[in-house]
This record gives sequence, C-alpha cells and structure tokens, in this order.
Amino acid sequence: MEADFQFGDVEELFRSAPTLKDEFVIRENLEKFIHRNCELGRRLVCITSGGTSAPLERNCVRFLHNFSSGNRGAVSTEYFLQAGYAVIFLYKRNSSQPYCRRIVECFKPDHSSSVQDRIELMECAVQSYHESVVQGKLLEVSYETIFQYLQLLRLIARNMNCLEKNAMFYLAAAVADFYVPWEAMDEHKIQSREGPLTIQLALVPKMIKVLRKQWAPSAFCVSFKLETDSTILMKKAKEALHKYNVHAVVANELTTRNEKVIVVTNEGEKTIEKDLDVEMPLVQFLKERHREFIECK
Amino acid sequence: MEADFQFGDVEELFRSAPTLKDEFVIRENLEKFIHRNCELGRRLVCITSGGTSAPLERNCVRFLHNFSSGNRGAVSTEYFLQAGYAVIFLYKRNSSQPYCRRIVECFKPDHSSSVQDRIELMECAVQSYHESVVQGKLLEVSYETIFQYLQLLRLIARNMNCLEKNAMFYLAAAVADFYVPWEAMDEHKIQSREGPLTIQLALVPKMIKVLRKQWAPSAFCVSFKLETDSTILMKKAKEALHKYNVHAVVANELTTRNEKVIVVTNEGEKTIEKDLDVEMPLVQFLKERHREFIECK
Repeated sequence: MEADFQFGDVEELFRSAPTLKDEFVIRENLEKFIHRNCELGRRLVCITSGGTSAPLERNCVRFLHNFSSGNRGAVSTEYFLQAGYAVIFLYKRNSSQPYCRRIVECFKPDHSSSVQDRIELMECAVQSYHESVVQGKLLEVSYETIFQYLQLLRLIARNMNCLEKNAMFYLAAAVADFYVPWEAMDEHKIQSREGPLTIQLALVPKMIKVLRKQWAPSAFCVSFKLETDSTILMKKAKEALHKYNVHAVVANELTTRNEKVIVVTNEGEKTIEKDLDVEMPLVQFLKERHREFIECK
Repeated sequence: MEADFQFGDVEELFRSAPTLKDEFVIRENLEKFIHRNCELGRRLVCITSGGTSAPLERNCVRFLHNFSSGNRGAVSTEYFLQAGYAVIFLYKRNSSQPYCRRIVECFKPDHSSSVQDRIELMECAVQSYHESVVQGKLLEVSYETIFQYLQLLRLIARNMNCLEKNAMFYLAAAVADFYVPWEAMDEHKIQSREGPLTIQLALVPKMIKVLRKQWAPSAFCVSFKLETDSTILMKKAKEALHKYNVHAVVANELTTRNEKVIVVTNEGEKTIEKDLDVEMPLVQFLKERHREFIECK
C-alpha cells in the first residue's frame, strides 16, 4: 500500500529543514513581482524546473539526485512568456535556463555553423532574456536541495494565492521521492575508508496535495509524471490526477519525452506530438485549458 | 582500515559495466588528436571535470551524485590552452565548459551591465572556444555515469601513454566513492509507493593507482582532494600523495576552494592564493613542476 498522506510528515520536514538563506530578499522580490503583474491583469505561472538533490551530509559533497536537465521547464518558460503570461521560474541551480538552449549549441565542436551565425544566435538569446527580466515578466528563483525547493515552492504558492484562478502551477521539476532527514545526517563528508555504505532513506511527503489544499487552492495546477516503464505510465498518470486533485497530468516516458507527451485531464487524454518541439503545442494546449478554467464559474 | 587496492575489483567493475556507446568514434578522434599534437611537440593534459553520477536504476532516473559545478576544470582548461598545452577535456555532461563562465553572467538579472556589453563578452567566448577546437588544441569528451567516466579515462590514458613525460593528468573531477554495481541494479525506476528505501553501496576502486601503474605510468599526475573538515584535509592530501604515487595533490576545502588551495608535492606544500582566480596561478605553478619533471633525466 502506498504510504498515505500525513500533514504531520509535511510539518516535520519543514520544522527540521535548515533555514532558507536570503528568505527576506526573496520574499520581497516575489511580493513586488506578483503584485505588479496582478495589477496589470497578467496571468501568472510558476514553473518548477530541474532535479532536486537530497544531501547525504550537512556540509554536502554527496547527494541523491533525480535526473532532469531542466530543458522542459526552461523551454516552456519561453512559450508561456510568448503567450502573455508572467513567469516565476523556480529552477535547480546549474540546470537549463530560458533562452539558453541555443547557447549550448554554440559550444559544440560542430563545424557546420560559422562563428558569425553562432554570435547572432546568442545576441538574440541575450536580448530576449534581458527584455523579459527588465519588463518584469520573468522572475528567476534558484534552489539546490529538496529542502530549499519545498520551502521556496511554499513561499511562492502562498503569495500567488491572491491571484486565485489567474495563477497556474506547472510542476516540471523532478522532485526527489526519498531523502535523508536533516537530523539524521552526518555533519561532514562521509569517509570512504570506512568501507561499503548503507543509506536509510525516508519518503518525501507529496507536497502537491498541500499546495492544492492549503497553499493555493484556487490555482490551475499541472503536474508531471515520468516513468521508464511504459506499461505503468498511463495508469500512474491517471491515479495522480485524482490523488493529487490536479487539473492536468503530463505523462512522459523517459526515452520518448522529447517526441511526445500525453496530457491527462478529467475530460480524457490528449496526445501532444512534437512540432518544432513538444513544449510549444503543450503550452498552447494548457493555456486553452487554463482559459476555460478561468471562464468557468 | 581502508579497503586495500585490489586489481580484481577494478577488473570486476569494468567487466560488469554497460558497454560504452560510440566507443569506436571516440577512440578514433582521440588517436587522431593525440597523434597530431604529439607530432607538433605540444605538451598534452587530460583534464577531468565535474561530478560523476552513480545510477540507482538501469533506466536511470535517480542517481547518487558528487557535488561539483565543473568550474575548476573548465577554467583551468582555458589557462592550460593559454600556456601552450593541448587539452583533452573529459567532463560531466551539463557541467561547466571552457569559456562558458562569462556566458552564465550574461543570464543573470543584473542591471549593471548593458546588453551590448554582454553580447561582446559572449562574442569573445565563442571565438576563443571555436579557435581552440578548429586549431586542434581542444578535444572535449563527455560522460554521465561513473561507469562511462572510468571507461573513458582508461581509453584516454592508454592512448596518452605514448607521450610519456609530455603527458599530464589533472584529475579535477569529483569521482564517486560509492556505487551500485550494475548487476545489483533495478531495471526500472524504483517506486516510492513501496515506502522508505535502503540502498547498499559498494566502494569504487581507486583508479588513480591503476592509471599510475598500468595505463600511463610515465605521465605527470595531479590529483585533487576535497574535504569539508579542514582539520583532516592536509593529512589526507599527504596520504594521497604517497598512496596513489602522484606528483602533486591539490588540497581544497569546500567553503574556501575559490580563494585558495594548497598543492602538496614531495618537495613540500605550496599555498596558492587567488589572483583573478585560483586557477591562473595554480596552472602556472603546475606547468613549472611539469617542466622540471620533463627536464629531469
């Protein structure tokens, strides 16, 4: 049986987590950003992106990590901005950032494109990024560990609650399922001379439920389900829709995730296939669902 | 007692590891690169960079990861190229690459530098990178897992052996100490519904010893030691110098590693402090030690 939802576990995780650095500054920036975009009547989406790391040591050298380049979240951010949304981009430090995918291509030893072409690509990327930030449409907030991710998501969600239906959560980050509780953690780097190692991991409580029930219950909420085994993917995506009470679940299979995804909603399943990329039609589809959700009294 | 060195463990790891993808192409590129630089009489350094991940599942979604942005290796590559070396850059996919540090700065929401300044920085970075590749001075080889890292290091080291004393290894990658042997691994993503998880980890055999004894015994070899506990750092760095029989160990402490490092050699200890950065004087110092090593009959 699946471990059931316990508000106690959630409280315990937050209680024992290390204090968030710069919380005051982050909170101030968030409030300003949300307030301004709310006044302008913009829809606002919080996009989470990248893996989350669960430290094994307090002075962390080793951690348990979930696979995620952060590409899905970064590219989707570009399309949500294009679609008129303001975006809070909550991303794992050193994972992909919006407008950066072209940059990576400029540093490939591929002799087919000239230096001049590469420089033009980059100019365009820097300009688009800069404009979004300066016009107050894009706010980036970074995290490293699962503790920071959850604390920041709570902070953002509670602040976005005032937007009610105009708020969307697009939870593309690959959140750790397992972690070592802070209080059970070694202070320093675990020494390999002690020989083989056994790690005891606790389950990370499913925060989407708390987000839906407590932090921002009026918002439109999209979660992601990634599996490597295609035979269980759709079953698990449908279960997630009900269990977490979200508006859409994007089902991905690891090897085909850049070719197609299937969006599960209460109305059924919609297969979204790659155009230039998968993110463009996916964001378009979700924008429409969000519009219907807002218009539905 | 520290688990002692067993050639058997090394053989076992290589025997059970999944086959390296594209090995034939990589091998061909390597041979061409090394042969050409050897003919030109260039010194050649293999720089390893970034963390290594140890998968928990064969279709990997989760892995155990060592902290490393890859900055040390990426920036050192720039200085080794400046110093006239050819560089094989063996790096973790998505970790820092040479000439990219300025790029990251262009995507910071910092209003102090203009878009034009940012674009000029990037132009300069793309051009430097492009030149190094086109002139055949820089070869980049990427890896993801600890298995790929070790297989590639072995391939590179065996090929570099022909350079004898003109070869250097600058082993800045944060190599995993623990891993799940391939044969003990689950096929698919471990399901969180089963509840808390216990992971049994085996020790990764210390490959530096094999590199020094078998793969490239004539090369100049620099290893790195990172600790979070400053009270044991120097003791461990000195032990490493003798245990792995390397020519220099660069001792770093996690919190001060961008301010200073201490290089331990048979001649004693040398503290290297930040100038523009730590890497510039560090590479300068090691280049001199390498020159002495080559000239010493």
